Parts: sequence; structure tokens; C-alpha cells
Amino acid sequence: MPGVLDLVGIFVFAVSGALAAVQKRLDVVGMVVLAEITALGGGILRDLVIGAVPPVAFTSVSYVVVPLLASALVFFWHPHFTRIMPAVMLFDAAGLGLFCVTGAIKALDYHLSPLHAVLLGVITAVGGGILRDMMSGQIPSVLYDRQLYALPALVGATVATALWQQPQLHGVFVSAGSALLAFGLRVAAMRWNWRTPRARGVGD
Amino acid sequence: MPGVLDLVGIFVFAVSGALAAVQKRLDVVGMVVLAEITALGGGILRDLVIGAVPPVAFTSVSYVVVPLLASALVFFWHPHFTRIMPAVMLFDAAGLGLFCVTGAIKALDYHLSPLHAVLLGVITAVGGGILRDMMSGQIPSVLYDRQLYALPALVGATVATALWQQPQLHGVFVSAGSALLAFGLRVAAMRWNWRTPRARGVGD
Amino acid sequence: MPGVLDLVGIFVFAVSGALAAVQKRLDVVGMVVLAEITALGGGILRDLVIGAVPPVAFTSVSYVVVPLLASALVFFWHPHFTRIMPAVMLFDAAGLGLFCVTGAIKALDYHLSPLHAVLLGVITAVGGGILRDMMSGQIPSVLYDRQLYALPALVGATVATALWQQPQLHGVFVSAGSALLAFGLRVAAMRWNWRTPRARGVGD
Repeated sequence: MPGVLDLVGIFVFAVSGALAAVQKRLDVVGMVVLAEITALGGGILRDLVIGAVPPVAFTSVSYVVVPLLASALVFFWHPHFTRIMPAVMLFDAAGLGLFCVTGAIKALDYHLSPLHAVLLGVITAVGGGILRDMMSGQIPSVLYDRQLYALPALVGATVATALWQQPQLHGVFVSAGSALLAFGLRVAAMRWNWRTPRARGVGD
Repeated sequence: MPGVLDLVGIFVFAVSGALAAVQKRLDVVGMVVLAEITALGGGILRDLVIGAVPPVAFTSVSYVVVPLLASALVFFWHPHFTRIMPAVMLFDAAGLGLFCVTGAIKALDYHLSPLHAVLLGVITAVGGGILRDMMSGQIPSVLYDRQLYALPALVGATVATALWQQPQLHGVFVSAGSALLAFGLRVAAMRWNWRTPRARGVGD
Repeated sequence: MPGVLDLVGIFVFAVSGALAAVQKRLDVVGMVVLAEITALGGGILRDLVIGAVPPVAFTSVSYVVVPLLASALVFFWHPHFTRIMPAVMLFDAAGLGLFCVTGAIKALDYHLSPLHAVLLGVITAVGGGILRDMMSGQIPSVLYDRQLYALPALVGATVATALWQQPQLHGVFVSAGSALLAFGLRVAAMRWNWRTPRARGVGD
């Protein structure tokens, strides 16, 4: 069951990578590379840091195949994806919520401190998008677009990490609940246009 | 003998990095950094992923020295390199063919699945060029230039990986043959200007 | 005592990252990300390469907290930092000197060759700044600004590595002396505007 959710997260992140490639008029190679890196990049960074090598992306066949599938869909039907963008954004929020929680819990499994587990949860959730933007030749959108994107991941990873300190709380309810919290915060931030500030005096 | 071929691949990739630095009017530090990262980046990424640390670039002296030599040559004689660009492109194709095969086989040695060995072969072959372009402030050319560059590497890595499944086929003939195939495809793609498509409807 | 110096280096590098974020009009998330990556990126790269996982940035709480502190200071008082830029540049030179030496010595501790220890010393010193610039959407300044920045790190790492070959020279005097040398070279290069050349004939 978490396996299925992981693959859903990978699929939506891959779609966002492939759509970025269409927007930049990249070719099919660029689509596949951006789809793979967006979907798998955050988890690969996390696994390299905690020493879980080869990273799961290099041991699981479905982790590699799902972004190929997403690329094929976007290749043929990308105008439809642009039309259903609100739905894609919802799935992206689901991926964000899921990845920040699974990333933090995996880091705890590898005996990192709670602070660093939270950090790795956020890296897992936003790392792929950062790599996608860097490879597309633009500043990572998470650094400037002022939408709440990293912060919901921070909250989800923090709550999951805090609850995980109690062994009797380990389980799918805590992880699903934390992921839902991050998902809800992200959706609320999109709905009511919550924004992060710039440095004092830099202005809007 | 494979050692010599590896160094030839490193040399030509380093030349392409140093020439990119000249084109961007970088200084000598930029030339050396781009030469090293272009030549060694793909292999470093592969070794980090499979857990072969320190990566071979950090244990072999000649891996580091050859890009320095390439930088020195480009520093003094870069106009000549621009003139012999067709030859440089041939060597680059040789490096591509060689790296995709050695990368895939090394991944198999580290017990990765055939699918992931192919993936790592391609990463070894194109990773350095991607890092070079990202550090030069441009979208990696492999993502958009529509020339067949990643695909010959994919074919070479796939053939090498498939044949390597039979232990009795392990050896220099299979690896050299696969590298030659990737090299030939790349050269043919340059000769007849084969191109990869963009997403349906994005047009030329 | 070296611990304190490390944190000073991290602090000043984090300040440079946060100031880059202000300059690019990034939001508070961008400030924190650039501060962390500038301060910790070089050391993380070094630790991944030598196999010291998790990297020290993911085991030490203060390594993560100090850049947060630097971000908060820049968030509220960044105009003051711009005014005291010469002092910030001095501290940055101190961080450069310190990181190139500690990076090289840590690599020697992990049994890398002297050549590769020097290389990793330079990567530790300049890696964070390179990642900062790549994430800010610009060519890493170390590649083109022609000021002596990487070269003092190269000298400091080389001297530290050479002296460290004699076990009886291991100690704080040699490391502090090598760091001071790199620091002094960097300050002198700023003071007298020493510059690195471009490739022959590319001109000024």
C-alpha cells in the first residue's frame, strides 16, 4: 500500500518534469531525463546522504519505469495535461506530503537525529523539483515563488518525526496523517494564496 | 589496454569542457574546473550511486592529471582545436561509446539489475556533459539539441548489458563491440543528421 | 577550538548565501536554502566522495542551526551587511582558508592520496559557493571572476597536505599556519587585485 502511494508520488512528479520539458521545447530525451530526475532526484539525494546505496531508484524497476510511462503520456497528450493542471497540482501536493514523511522516517530508520530527519524529509520532497529547475536553466521555483511549498513539507516532516519518537506510534496512521497534514496545508496555501515574505524592506 | 581507452575518453571529454570555458570567456580556473567535471563527472555520479567510494577519479592520479593536460593544450592552442572540431567530435563519440559500456559493466559488477546497469551506463556517458552545461549556465545540450547523443549511449549500454548476462561472453570483444556500436550510431547520426522528436504538436 | 573555527567558516559562508538570496529578491525559503547550501555544500560533497556518510552536516545540530541564525540576521539587517561587506569578505577569506585545510586533512584521514586530498580541500572550500551560484541561476563566480579565489585554497591545501606527510607535524600549528597562508593570499589578491588569465588570445 505505501508502495502504491510512492509510485503515485513518483508519477505526478514525473508528469511535472515532462511538462516542464514541453514548455521549454526540449526533445523526447529531455522529457525523459527531466521526468526521471524530478520524480527520483529527491529520494536519490536522501539515500546518498544516509548511505543507503544503491539508492532505491537504482534497485526498483518500477521507480524507473513509471516516469517513462508518465513521459509517454505527456508526449502524446500534453495539451490535456495543461487543461487538467488543477488536478495535476493536487496530485503534486499529494506527492509532496507523501515524500516529506517517507523521507523523514527513512532517515530516522538510518539513525539520524530528529532535526536531520526533518531536513531530509524536506530534501526528499523538494529536491527533485530543484534539480528539474536547475536543469531547465531557471532558478528553482521553490526559492522565489513565495507560494507555500517547502513549508508544508517542513510541517509534515516535523510532525511525523515528532510522533515517530514514540515507538508505539509507528505505523501507517501516523505517517498517513502527517502526509495528509502537509497535503492539506499545501492545498490551503494554493486556495487562499498564502505567501512567504522576502527579507525586510525588499518589498513586493 | 582498457585503461588507455578510459584515459582517451577522459582526454576528449576534458577538451570539450575546456573549449566550452574558452567560448564562455572563463578564466584558467574555470577551464580546469570544466575540464575536470566534464571528464570525470559522469563516472563520479556512477560511483557514488553504486557505492564505489572513493570514486575512481579520487583514487587514480592519471584521471586527475589528464584533464589538466587537456586544459593546458586548450589554453595555448584553442584556435587549433576549433579548426579540428570534426576530429574532436569523433573522439567525443569514442568517449561516449566507451563510457556507456564501461559504466554499465561496472554497475553489473556491483550487482545492479540489467535495467539499472543500462541507466548507469548512460549516466556515465552523458553525466559529465550535463554537469559541464549546468555549470556554464545553459540547459544541458543533451536535453534539447535533438541530435542523437543519449540514444547511441542507450543502445551501447543495452547491448553490452544483454550480452554480459552470459558469463562466457565477458571480455574485451563484447565490450569493445558494444562501444563500437554506440560510436558508429553516434557518427552515423552526425553524418546523416538524425534527430529526436519533440512532444507531439510542439513542432519544429 | 577547531570546532569553533568551523562554525565561524559556516557562518560567513551562510551570510554570503543569504545575501545572494536578497540580491536575487528570493523569499525567506530561498534565503535559508542558499545559506545552508553555501555553508554546508562543500563539506557534503567532500564527505560523499570519501564515504563519510552521513556527512557531518547531517550529524551535527550546530552545522544546521548556524546557517539558520545567519539567515535570520540577514533577513532583518541585510542593509547593514552590505555596508560591512569588506569585513564579510575578510571572514569569507577566513572560511576559505579554514575549509581548504580541514577538507584536505579529512581526506588524508580517509587514506586518499596527497593529490586527491588537495583536490578535496579545494572542493570543500569552493564547492558551497559553486552550488550557491548554480542555484541562483548564474555561472559560478569562481569560474570567471578572475580574482584569486580557488588558487589560495589550492596553495593552502597543498601546503597542509605536504606538511601532513610527516606524522610529527600533525597538529593545530600546521593546520592553522596553512589556513593563514591561504587567508593571507586571498586577502593580498583582493588588496592588490591579482588576477587569473584567460586562455591565450581571448583577451581582456
